[in-house]
Amino acid sequence: MNIALAQLNYHIGNFERNAEKMIKSIRQAEKQGADLVVFAELAVSGYPPRDFLEFRDFVNRCNESVDEIASHCTNIAAIIGLPTYNRGDKGKPLHNSAAFIANGKVQQLVHKSLLPNYDIFDEYRYFEPNKSFQLVELKGKKIALTICEDLWNIQDNPLYTINPMDGLKKLNPDLIINIAASPFNYHQIEIRTDILRRNAKKYKLPLFYVNHVGAQTELIFDGGSLVMNKKGQVVDELNYFEEDLKIYDVDDVCLTDASAPMEKRPDISMIHDALVLGIRNYFKKLGFHKAIIGLSGGIDSALTAVLAAEALGHEHVYNVLLPSEFSSEHSVKDAVELAENMQMPYDIISIEEARQTVERTLKPYFKELPFNIAEENIQARIRGVLLMALSNKFGYILLNTSNKSEVAVGYSTLYGDMNGGLSVLGDVYKTQVFELARYINREKEIIPENIITKPPSAELRPDQKDTDSLPEYDILDEILYQYIENREGPKEIIAMGFDEHLVRRILKLANTSEYKRYQTPPILRVSSKAFGMGRRIPIVAKYLS
Amino acid sequence: MNIALAQLNYHIGNFERNAEKMIKSIRQAEKQGADLVVFAELAVSGYPPRDFLEFRDFVNRCNESVDEIASHCTNIAAIIGLPTYNRGDKGKPLHNSAAFIANGKVQQLVHKSLLPNYDIFDEYRYFEPNKSFQLVELKGKKIALTICEDLWNIQDNPLYTINPMDGLKKLNPDLIINIAASPFNYHQIEIRTDILRRNAKKYKLPLFYVNHVGAQTELIFDGGSLVMNKKGQVVDELNYFEEDLKIYDVDDVCLTDASAPMEKRPDISMIHDALVLGIRNYFKKLGFHKAIIGLSGGIDSALTAVLAAEALGHEHVYNVLLPSEFSSEHSVKDAVELAENMQMPYDIISIEEARQTVERTLKPYFKELPFNIAEENIQARIRGVLLMALSNKFGYILLNTSNKSEVAVGYSTLYGDMNGGLSVLGDVYKTQVFELARYINREKEIIPENIITKPPSAELRPDQKDTDSLPEYDILDEILYQYIENREGPKEIIAMGFDEHLVRRILKLANTSEYKRYQTPPILRVSSKAFGMGRRIPIVAKYLS
Repeated sequence: MNIALAQLNYHIGNFERNAEKMIKSIRQAEKQGADLVVFAELAVSGYPPRDFLEFRDFVNRCNESVDEIASHCTNIAAIIGLPTYNRGDKGKPLHNSAAFIANGKVQQLVHKSLLPNYDIFDEYRYFEPNKSFQLVELKGKKIALTICEDLWNIQDNPLYTINPMDGLKKLNPDLIINIAASPFNYHQIEIRTDILRRNAKKYKLPLFYVNHVGAQTELIFDGGSLVMNKKGQVVDELNYFEEDLKIYDVDDVCLTDASAPMEKRPDISMIHDALVLGIRNYFKKLGFHKAIIGLSGGIDSALTAVLAAEALGHEHVYNVLLPSEFSSEHSVKDAVELAENMQMPYDIISIEEARQTVERTLKPYFKELPFNIAEENIQARIRGVLLMALSNKFGYILLNTSNKSEVAVGYSTLYGDMNGGLSVLGDVYKTQVFELARYINREKEIIPENIITKPPSAELRPDQKDTDSLPEYDILDEILYQYIENREGPKEIIAMGFDEHLVRRILKLANTSEYKRYQTPPILRVSSKAFGMGRRIPIVAKYLS
Repeated sequence: MNIALAQLNYHIGNFERNAEKMIKSIRQAEKQGADLVVFAELAVSGYPPRDFLEFRDFVNRCNESVDEIASHCTNIAAIIGLPTYNRGDKGKPLHNSAAFIANGKVQQLVHKSLLPNYDIFDEYRYFEPNKSFQLVELKGKKIALTICEDLWNIQDNPLYTINPMDGLKKLNPDLIINIAASPFNYHQIEIRTDILRRNAKKYKLPLFYVNHVGAQTELIFDGGSLVMNKKGQVVDELNYFEEDLKIYDVDDVCLTDASAPMEKRPDISMIHDALVLGIRNYFKKLGFHKAIIGLSGGIDSALTAVLAAEALGHEHVYNVLLPSEFSSEHSVKDAVELAENMQMPYDIISIEEARQTVERTLKPYFKELPFNIAEENIQARIRGVLLMALSNKFGYILLNTSNKSEVAVGYSTLYGDMNGGLSVLGDVYKTQVFELARYINREKEIIPENIITKPPSAELRPDQKDTDSLPEYDILDEILYQYIENREGPKEIIAMGFDEHLVRRILKLANTSEYKRYQTPPILRVSSKAFGMGRRIPIVAKYLS
């Protein structure tokens, strides 16, 4: 039996486009001799559909769309993920299902048993879990058809009380198919492969895994669909970060020895590709194609501009330099050099006149009070006004350039440099920003060396440096990583050897800036714990603050 | 047996303050002869603690705090809600528990069985449900101790597959206690009382219900703790929207006839009180006491200012009038009249000079392109810059004044009038804004009549009116209500008799402005479906857009 794995980039709720893509893959797989073509979890709707699932209209359209696609499957079978109605009289209204399609219609529905409800996942919000198990049969082969998390209860510390594969194994399947919606983070590929390997080995079955590819707002799906033999060796992978379709003979997969491990790409190159795809899909799926960026001369905006140029084309990234009286000469020079290196359009627009006018307008109220954060923020906000005006006038999307370290400690101005339709680096720590810049420059100097080596500064008052109010970034980032990714409390972090006063100050900064993050743009997620939907912290609270 | 119901206003993560309040209530109840004092669900941490629950440090502090409180219960028993560790080897790491305390320590833990995971609730994210049932005994009375949602599987269309009270009833309890964290919305009190009534009647048991009171960011808890007899009649209620403690003899409750229904207060007065409490608690729990508001002369900002004055004191609400060349004369006059009626401080700061300077700065880039939304937004954003500068300089929190109808269709400027620490009216439709204004003016004219009767306008270009681009608000709000609260799709709404073209346009506006709402401030929730955590819609999607 030949199985085609179709790794596609869906668009949430774009039923026509998603169906069109799937029908095209069905034709291609059929032409290449496949007996079965496998699409991802909730492929028909795109993932995650979130509360669209609460609209019967939406769920109906998903089901109508699958029926339409099924009508094209007269000479080939297909597996497609979709939401279906719970026909029982109890429990949540929907199932997260896989439709097994043959002879032009849906023959069988298999529902997901393990519903992830952590981090960015909310599946228990919508779906009733499956508790009874059955196989799917095609051409004499019995298939254990599972949906993503169904294979994930195989670690040492199980989150769930049942394991669907134990139920399915009793029915003597010949292979496992897993359709997934597993978003990228730079730890995920290793974890995912390990989970799949444990399943293949434990149940002594070949495994065919199909994931989404492409970005849906903040979530980036890397693809990485794969085929494993019974020993848990990766026989082949589909391409990362792009659509792909490949066909495998089940018996061949079983016979293939793949003891040489697949080459592991460095994290930083994966993060790079994920961010580029994240930007590209955000624009394309919203129907935009031009970005505007406030280019400060610092490393964050420089890196954002380069990533945007890779995603959208250098001619579609408009850089605006917005110097004030506190901007150093090298800032403008460095920014211009970058824009010219990359052949990106740019303009230099001084904020001085507008800043002075705003301050003059406020003078009767501010009186002789000393310069403080109010005046610093005025600069950032005037920049925001100018960038948004250009965005509105010419149809650019403003890209936010804040990094994760800044976002974590609130070292940014709400309605100022926090503006943007999408945050490119909000899940990338400052130390990783430097790594990415070095990666960009691996063959030639694209980001001017001076941008990478000079001490980071917001340049909102004379001779300001980030280290005036924050520790060195390698220390800051490690404390933040322990707090955010590992969810360690102050005692545990201090026990690791960090200064107590510093730890408490950093955690307090992180917690008291929750109100700012509530209003931050969506942040491209590349870590195991990004700000946004996956991290839900109360604003009005008194914990560690 | 005498039971004290303690309805308190907790602060999430403020363990010292929450414990102090509970210990004070324990002393008071003891002094008044209570045998048992009952506190709300997750009282020790405040509700909802959200992802703080993923920190062992946080959960440990909850448990330490309950031990400390228990040490004060030597002559009285207590029931306190807290998170506890799941000691089993499978499932989620925590339980949502009620500690039964007597003789100075925790004697028994009861875990919640039904975990709400819809709308604003994410309890399945953290907690493993309970599946075995036991009663609590005190002074010869057997208590069915339940936690909030445990009583909610009693409707016609059950969301859950089990019903904890069926299990508990078999053990022959004498009464039901339910500790809850049930936030306000203007349908909720009726629904909640009905659910409790069905339980009391079905199981023929008196029922003691303790809820939270007070606001936690966007969620407002109305209290409404109550006592029911076996017939499901409300024997007594605690005060709404304030802390309260009352003591009841269980046998007396059983004997009391309460066939005359409690007086039902009109929705609009409940919404009013909820919003005032929401503002007050947001400021107090963040340690602020002064608000700043951009007073436009329109009804939304007028109503926001009045509610803020009720919450914080009129002298703590600083109103800034920010006229432009498009502001009508009556706008300034009406706004001044309101500020003077309420004795609120105000200033008039023209945005003209700043606006002209920004436009002059952009002139070389805008060239001769016609006036459009870019220039409209510049006005809104300059106002944002000025208000935030004053906020930063003097320690005000800026209150957002957008109403739900506007927020729904994106009729507002990101980083302009969408600014604010808290949105007061973002869950109040424009038609309800008028109702609230009439309610405020029920005894005397506080909001000038002209503000209520003039046609709504954003005044961002000459002679602009809301109805230039939107239908009348009674039609708009009804369509939005069907779409947002009732989750009806276009077909269903059109079938109700609304114009097809209009319905499709409104739903498209609603969906394409999702990106703006992502960056909106937290919105005080008064409806059954508010924008924010309770409504999760993808930004990059192509459904109804």
